[in-house]
Amino acid sequence: MKKILLLSFFVLPIALVAQNVDSLQIKKISDDVFTNGKAYDNLRFLCKQVGPRLSGSPQAQKAVEATARMLKEAGADTVYLQPCMVPHWIRGEKEKGKIILDKNQSFDLKLCALGNSEGTGKNGVTGEVVEVKTMAELHRLGTAGIKGKIVFFNFAMNPTNVQTFRSYGESGTARRIGPAQAAKYGALAVMVRSLASNGDDYPHTGTTQYNDSFPKIGAVAISTNDADRLSIELTTHDVVKAYIRTTSTMLPDVQSYNVVGEIRGSHFPNEVITVGGHLDSWDLAEGAQDDGAGCVQSIEVLRAIKAAGIKPKRTIRAVMFMNEENGGRGGEKYLELAKFNKEQHLFALESDAGGFTPRGFGFDMKPQQLAKVQEWKPLFYPYGVYELRAGGGGSDISPLRSIGTALSGLSPDSQRYFDLHHAATDTFEAVSKRELHLGAINMAALIYLVDKYGL
Amino acid sequence: MKKILLLSFFVLPIALVAQNVDSLQIKKISDDVFTNGKAYDNLRFLCKQVGPRLSGSPQAQKAVEATARMLKEAGADTVYLQPCMVPHWIRGEKEKGKIILDKNQSFDLKLCALGNSEGTGKNGVTGEVVEVKTMAELHRLGTAGIKGKIVFFNFAMNPTNVQTFRSYGESGTARRIGPAQAAKYGALAVMVRSLASNGDDYPHTGTTQYNDSFPKIGAVAISTNDADRLSIELTTHDVVKAYIRTTSTMLPDVQSYNVVGEIRGSHFPNEVITVGGHLDSWDLAEGAQDDGAGCVQSIEVLRAIKAAGIKPKRTIRAVMFMNEENGGRGGEKYLELAKFNKEQHLFALESDAGGFTPRGFGFDMKPQQLAKVQEWKPLFYPYGVYELRAGGGGSDISPLRSIGTALSGLSPDSQRYFDLHHAATDTFEAVSKRELHLGAINMAALIYLVDKYGL
Repeated sequence: MKKILLLSFFVLPIALVAQNVDSLQIKKISDDVFTNGKAYDNLRFLCKQVGPRLSGSPQAQKAVEATARMLKEAGADTVYLQPCMVPHWIRGEKEKGKIILDKNQSFDLKLCALGNSEGTGKNGVTGEVVEVKTMAELHRLGTAGIKGKIVFFNFAMNPTNVQTFRSYGESGTARRIGPAQAAKYGALAVMVRSLASNGDDYPHTGTTQYNDSFPKIGAVAISTNDADRLSIELTTHDVVKAYIRTTSTMLPDVQSYNVVGEIRGSHFPNEVITVGGHLDSWDLAEGAQDDGAGCVQSIEVLRAIKAAGIKPKRTIRAVMFMNEENGGRGGEKYLELAKFNKEQHLFALESDAGGFTPRGFGFDMKPQQLAKVQEWKPLFYPYGVYELRAGGGGSDISPLRSIGTALSGLSPDSQRYFDLHHAATDTFEAVSKRELHLGAINMAALIYLVDKYGL
Repeated sequence: MKKILLLSFFVLPIALVAQNVDSLQIKKISDDVFTNGKAYDNLRFLCKQVGPRLSGSPQAQKAVEATARMLKEAGADTVYLQPCMVPHWIRGEKEKGKIILDKNQSFDLKLCALGNSEGTGKNGVTGEVVEVKTMAELHRLGTAGIKGKIVFFNFAMNPTNVQTFRSYGESGTARRIGPAQAAKYGALAVMVRSLASNGDDYPHTGTTQYNDSFPKIGAVAISTNDADRLSIELTTHDVVKAYIRTTSTMLPDVQSYNVVGEIRGSHFPNEVITVGGHLDSWDLAEGAQDDGAGCVQSIEVLRAIKAAGIKPKRTIRAVMFMNEENGGRGGEKYLELAKFNKEQHLFALESDAGGFTPRGFGFDMKPQQLAKVQEWKPLFYPYGVYELRAGGGGSDISPLRSIGTALSGLSPDSQRYFDLHHAATDTFEAVSKRELHLGAINMAALIYLVDKYGL
């Protein structure tokens, strides 16, 4: 007992002094980012000068060049590209679709082809609409109820989950596997209700995954307002038909790149700390919150560390991952090269939940590592981050789990994300400069602490 | 020691059971508000059908009628008006202003008269511009440096404070007392840099307070972009002049109302719990975040409590206070009537910091009351509220302090507030439905707990 008390007597003040030094260092980072931060200006460029940047598009290539330049300007001592082959999906001609109530009544749909989906053919398809609200309903209907029809997956996002990502995960099955499941029963095509948390007139796209054993039928998202209307019309009409025409298709893979900028570590240059977002976006949107925000925040972490005069012990890398949206090839390539080059990856942080006001970080790491990180909690509290919880990461960094890398994801407030996610409303104007920069401040603080103390 | 242990043994499980019951009750409230909440629709009406509603305006009267109706629809058992006289300030003709750099060069200002300010007269005023960045600078210049000139208060909001209200308080002296101080030294008129956290082209208004011993000179806010440009021009020109013309004036007081809706308490009907926001807004804005949000959230608290089947022990009142922006008369009247009617006011909660995602509550109450409230912290955590701190309230409820009422203010995230505060950009579109409703959920939870357990 006496021994423990004595130990505390010496240990506690040292810990407190360390926290005080760190608190001052983080305040310095914060003041600088709020005053001189470049994330918002970089995001404007990415949204307005580059624009939508789907993998394989000329704009994706422009985004590679633009962020390589930004990384240099941020003070990275090395900037390089990691070539990787990516899927090259194209939307084709503007999609058409309408709901036919009877001979004299129809209304046009606000719709878009789902990412990676194949077109309906030049003539489009027309068929009776069958609505399903759960996957079990689809299976109950089976071939008898579905063959030759157009399946309408009306899976509304559950509004009662405070964490909107949970509802996205739950209802997202419709978009992710709905077309493949409906094709199994002979459906002509599929319409999914947009995965949006609000009532709006914009279709929200996103990938679908076919099953090679069944036909690749046309698949679209319709706006939530259209979905609500259609659902009502179905209750008052015996037969409702839909016409859908899409010409999207998957072309052969093309070459693209991850963009990497690093500050070489002074003591342990072989220990890599990654901070990243994904550079590609959907073709319908400026990709401001998804995920231009995560890219410019990651670049800002490098800039802020340089600007604060911090000389990291470990190598800190900002990575713009390519092809998160419809393939994940950038993340896979990053792991492949890490293994090939025998790099040690200590920690990776991803920001891919929007540049909204930050609330926490989620961690996928060993319990003793998490315990260590949670001791830093008081350092984040003044910057609005109060939750350092188990569970987190990001799809681009998740391949690194296989080599034992500790992972983390920034958790910004999620209330507004699914109002604009994967839709034309995901524009630069929807991003708050202060919120974006506050996220970057917390990311820089975490990277600073992991670099200084290890895990 | 034994006794304490025994006590804990019995007390703890009861406390835990209570928290579990409360947690289920709050979840019920939350699910209902997220699913059936009316706050967002009510806000749309207030912004789009009523619009800007400055005290004394016809729209303010429309807002009184509209919210009285909303309170009835929300299930209040009694709805009534509290008459109160309010200042009737009018903006007059559209303001004019320009910066004259030399004979051939000038640029128009985006400007607006400050609230409660008097006009410059029909001919406007022209004078040399003197820039000051601190109040001390103004005093150093004194009469010699200021007489006959137009003072430009360029007090930028400090971007480094995470809590933007702090910067607002610090830089706000320019608007609040700048014109009176400049008039003391013989200034012709005053321009203040808008109290905005972003660079934009909108003037942000707000009240100024004259000193009766000095002339009531014209006073305007100019946009932050104009302020930045003017400040640069002043460094490269020996003399920069400004022309300003405003015709605003204060008319005699007129009658208006606080709107009150209440659910009568079942056990202690004489103990009043107030939840409110202010109904008036600036004339330039829809007043969505300031403070339509607080009004509709307060109405929502009543609706949610009714909908959850809760029968409050104490009387719960939602109050739409009139005239917070340029007089505070509604708050004063509320206290006056409370005293006159010998009401016991246990607790009052105000939402007047925007309908952004909630982060906490601030409390102005006795330490033992705060300690009790802080025990409820785990109940709020799932709803994004993690900070129950000392210090808080709101200007409409602050008069109640004099009769010993415990006060509280909702603390939403403050990053976006001063981008749009008191400007034409404070529109319905700037409000997120989920953020607004999440704020109302936490407010309802707090009111439910205070009603159930007292303070």
